[in-house]
Amino acid sequence: MSNFGFCDLRLVNPYAPSFREARSAVGAVSLLSKARQYESVADAVADCNLVIGTTAAARRELHHPLRRLGETETTSLIRRQLRRGHVALLFGSEKRGLSNEDFSHCHWLLRIPTREEHGSMNLGQAVAVCLYEIARHPQPGPRAAKGAGVAKTDGNRLANAAEVERVTAVLVDVLRGSGYLSASSSSMAEQKVRRMVRRLNLSTSDAQVWLGMLRQVLWKTKRIG
Amino acid sequence: MSNFGFCDLRLVNPYAPSFREARSAVGAVSLLSKARQYESVADAVADCNLVIGTTAAARRELHHPLRRLGETETTSLIRRQLRRGHVALLFGSEKRGLSNEDFSHCHWLLRIPTREEHGSMNLGQAVAVCLYEIARHPQPGPRAAKGAGVAKTDGNRLANAAEVERVTAVLVDVLRGSGYLSASSSSMAEQKVRRMVRRLNLSTSDAQVWLGMLRQVLWKTKRIG
Repeated sequence: MSNFGFCDLRLVNPYAPSFREARSAVGAVSLLSKARQYESVADAVADCNLVIGTTAAARRELHHPLRRLGETETTSLIRRQLRRGHVALLFGSEKRGLSNEDFSHCHWLLRIPTREEHGSMNLGQAVAVCLYEIARHPQPGPRAAKGAGVAKTDGNRLANAAEVERVTAVLVDVLRGSGYLSASSSSMAEQKVRRMVRRLNLSTSDAQVWLGMLRQVLWKTKRIG
Repeated sequence: MSNFGFCDLRLVNPYAPSFREARSAVGAVSLLSKARQYESVADAVADCNLVIGTTAAARRELHHPLRRLGETETTSLIRRQLRRGHVALLFGSEKRGLSNEDFSHCHWLLRIPTREEHGSMNLGQAVAVCLYEIARHPQPGPRAAKGAGVAKTDGNRLANAAEVERVTAVLVDVLRGSGYLSASSSSMAEQKVRRMVRRLNLSTSDAQVWLGMLRQVLWKTKRIG
């Protein structure tokens, strides 16, 4: 991360002994001492406007759009969002990768183009390759910066993950309240809803409007129920 | 290496305990079991037509052309040579990198574009980034393959490292014999000569001619001496 100029490391429930050991590693002390710890993926990405999950995409059936690292479209998507707000690149543990629950917090998934016969990468190497690719492209020039200025007028900005998650939470309550989801609905059903809301790519102002509408609906269904 | 389809690992005097441990690592057993060990860089790269050293290029004064990973010219140079013969990508140890002696076996040096403030990379990550970059480009099409066919007519082929090293060795003997280098000349002087010969980019047939000429000169200087 430090090699390529990325400095905001966030960890979800890191394994304490390994993290202690990593903190004392040479060369990245300042980055690691500023790393923040969270208890859930939702908390870790709360202020991010784009959340990208990484996957070797080998075994699992995926419910997300899958993009390839290095493709022009992928890179320009990431760079466009980097100019507008925070982008989270989510990596799973070395052994198991990201879970479906983790994926449900993502807008889309990213795959490093490896050989089919050997898709699963070492975690540190996967991070290095992704950040090299994102950093290698020229910085946005003045013209792009102007575009970002426009996009930053508050309401137009893409809603961040906390805003989207608020919409999701109320929507799940509404769906439960309405009987669409059973009161004891599985986490898989919730994940489907979460993915669906991410696909909306809500702006901040639209997320506010949706939240207002859903809260109203929730209040209504509870009154009736 | 295995992730990106490179399978010819060569090690120069590896640290035995680490190498034993690495051999038992998950997912790359076949690659590691086929890895070959050498006692010198010269032996390891003997059949290679292009030898590229890697460096963070931080402290040292360099005597070699330095290219940046990811630049179009760098990539096409590497790919062109990959179609013609073997290319060696030389990495130093985690702690010290490559020595000047190691560099003297290289045609040019490669630098991964990192932040200036933090140029030195983890070895495994540096390897992954380089191989990702080389593998990410489309494979050479039929037109390129045709070009390679032409290049492969024996004499036109770039001389491999063993052929170049033979020229170097005889040249050093000649320079010693002639008094240009003292009989006890330092390894630094030899390295200068080695770099100079690499810069000639000799073809196989030219290397043969040079070798014949130099051997003749050597025989002469010895007869006189």
